[in-house]
Amino acid sequence: MTTFGDISTQEFTINDRTYRPPARPIVVICIDGCADEYLSISIAKGRMPNVARIAGEGYRGLVRGALPSFTNVNNSSICTGVAPAVHGICGNFFLDPDTGEEVMMNSAKYLRAETILAAAANAGRKVAMVTAKEKLRDILSHNLTGIAFSAEKANEAQLSTHGIDDVEELVGAPTPEIYSGDASLYVLQAGAALVEQGRADFLYLSLTDFMQHKFDPWQEESLEFHAGIDREIGRLLDAGAIVAATADHGMNAKQTADGSPNVIYLEPLLAEEFDANIKVILPITDPYVAHHGALGSLAMVHLPDSVRTDPVISRLMEIEGITEVHCRASAVRKLELAPDRIGDLVVLSGRDVVLGRSPEHHDLKAVASGLRSHGGRYEEMVPLLVSEPLNDAYCRKASGDPRNFDVFDFAVNGTKP
Amino acid sequence: MTTFGDISTQEFTINDRTYRPPARPIVVICIDGCADEYLSISIAKGRMPNVARIAGEGYRGLVRGALPSFTNVNNSSICTGVAPAVHGICGNFFLDPDTGEEVMMNSAKYLRAETILAAAANAGRKVAMVTAKEKLRDILSHNLTGIAFSAEKANEAQLSTHGIDDVEELVGAPTPEIYSGDASLYVLQAGAALVEQGRADFLYLSLTDFMQHKFDPWQEESLEFHAGIDREIGRLLDAGAIVAATADHGMNAKQTADGSPNVIYLEPLLAEEFDANIKVILPITDPYVAHHGALGSLAMVHLPDSVRTDPVISRLMEIEGITEVHCRASAVRKLELAPDRIGDLVVLSGRDVVLGRSPEHHDLKAVASGLRSHGGRYEEMVPLLVSEPLNDAYCRKASGDPRNFDVFDFAVNGTKP
Repeated sequence: MTTFGDISTQEFTINDRTYRPPARPIVVICIDGCADEYLSISIAKGRMPNVARIAGEGYRGLVRGALPSFTNVNNSSICTGVAPAVHGICGNFFLDPDTGEEVMMNSAKYLRAETILAAAANAGRKVAMVTAKEKLRDILSHNLTGIAFSAEKANEAQLSTHGIDDVEELVGAPTPEIYSGDASLYVLQAGAALVEQGRADFLYLSLTDFMQHKFDPWQEESLEFHAGIDREIGRLLDAGAIVAATADHGMNAKQTADGSPNVIYLEPLLAEEFDANIKVILPITDPYVAHHGALGSLAMVHLPDSVRTDPVISRLMEIEGITEVHCRASAVRKLELAPDRIGDLVVLSGRDVVLGRSPEHHDLKAVASGLRSHGGRYEEMVPLLVSEPLNDAYCRKASGDPRNFDVFDFAVNGTKP
Repeated sequence: MTTFGDISTQEFTINDRTYRPPARPIVVICIDGCADEYLSISIAKGRMPNVARIAGEGYRGLVRGALPSFTNVNNSSICTGVAPAVHGICGNFFLDPDTGEEVMMNSAKYLRAETILAAAANAGRKVAMVTAKEKLRDILSHNLTGIAFSAEKANEAQLSTHGIDDVEELVGAPTPEIYSGDASLYVLQAGAALVEQGRADFLYLSLTDFMQHKFDPWQEESLEFHAGIDREIGRLLDAGAIVAATADHGMNAKQTADGSPNVIYLEPLLAEEFDANIKVILPITDPYVAHHGALGSLAMVHLPDSVRTDPVISRLMEIEGITEVHCRASAVRKLELAPDRIGDLVVLSGRDVVLGRSPEHHDLKAVASGLRSHGGRYEEMVPLLVSEPLNDAYCRKASGDPRNFDVFDFAVNGTKP
């Protein structure tokens, strides 16, 4: 094995957890939208030999993500090691109670916890955070002294602001189209090059789920995409890194038998039966509408003061396809959410069902080829891969209720020396 | 491929579904307690080569089981093709409202739907139903003209009552101990021999989850057990059968950090805060206490008339580890249960939490080596394996919300000709 004499092994504590990093590069990958079936089927088809080897020689299991099973929520959890109740990012999009405006939750100003990445850099690690989607960069690079850029805007990275200015040269390829599998592979290629060149030794690589939104696990496009992921994981392993991977959320088809989106539109229903001023906020909403048309399996409902919660909960629970309805207090308790970042009600839908605002709010042309999406309970369980055997303590931890936001803990503290 | 000239291809309709069987042996296996991780890890360790091949050349995916995620409930669903609301078996154990007695739901007198097995036999198929646990035999052999016996009582099978009287000779081994992996392998060995000898061409083989209750997926005992399952599946494939497999439920560790059972005892809590006559029924209860000590992740609560449901629901939802509480109407709607076979409340607990009646009701010595159990939402998703490629219609069906009780449908109607 390569020795890495100059890698800091200084321990650090952040958000009540202590990390004792070994003197090897640590790479944590968030395979956006990686339902476990994508790995199982790609392995079965012989397209992920490195991941198959990790599963055999290291660890493969299932971990529970944070709800809502959306990207910003879970990337924030993974990078802080805590639940949304603590870090505050409870959706991609929310109704800001201070302003009454509906806004993206893409800014670090909404983040209430420091990141593991910033703490590792402060402890002497050479940290790199590479994300496919620009929307995540501000949150995940909060207070970070190191490299932080997105594949989407790779050609805009500047030394003064991103800690790097030669990304296209590093990767050997131009900035990719965001609606592509290449946007994810670009992240991994950049990460592998950074490790190979000794420019980073503590990395977070966050992909995009465009391909998972568009393809079933057994389709050739998906298999080819996962073969690409596997190839770059192989490069990282060859470079001597400890590689751990998880997902922000799973992915399920959300279609009726005829292939059209299987949507429950909440606003017209609630307007007719309760009050026209009931507002439905869909926290999956983000700039990447081609992925999902803003249709996911969790919705926030804001009620005017004149409307009582209990009758609305009872009515919503009568609807087929709705699986859970929580009042704010219950959502705080059971879904680990921050009370000021959610609706009066939090509504979840089934494995093949999404929640919409009203038909006018959604452009279904974006998902005409078939809707696959996430956000609810059926996208909560996701894979955990660790490239080395777990030590006894983390083997016990794995056999409990491990979370996807324990992934840095597993990667740093969980392997045998 | 072997030709099977004498196998009936007569179609039959049962419980609103039509089955058009091909002229090949059809074998459906219920791998009791098979959380998907058991397959993933056994494959990764090279211990299930036949299942790995099925996943590559046929189909592997996830299907949603019936709740409660218990054995009798899901075996009944698999053999009838319908939800518990229709077939009536809503637990292993229940409070019979007609008698007021707490009884096992092991008898066909509780079954409200005919089975696919009986219908296949009536359509000219040579049917065999082999179960590890005797407790399932009466339900699953209801109105069946064919072979039906349990591994547990293999040596008691008689031609007049079981359709076979030479089981030990057939298998070439004595009746196995029920608390063993051998009890499951015996079922598969019997099934393989019946197909090889042309004595059955439409089989349901239901295993027992003793090993999954006792071992994590990565432990050698589990790997060796799964290698045994794989070996018998290979025999069935060699004999020309279409093999489909699913599980009745998954399995999770239910322990605190010190390894003791992670139990919420409901009766003392409800007695103290509401009424001493509130009765908690645990529908996991069965004759096989060494498996789980009657501790699972779903409980029925029966309230005296004087106790209102809403305050009890609110109180239970405050408790950490309890994930869902349904009133009877909600349980009928959301959990597909029969109203007269459940409690006034249905309570579910988390991935690592079980529900108990009171400390005096449970013998924790039976699970002192570590409690692994099931019954709730986190044991709802289970694998589906089909040994042949799916046809286009069933590929679409697989990419929706397929159920474990669609397994006969997939095996019979779902493969390419």
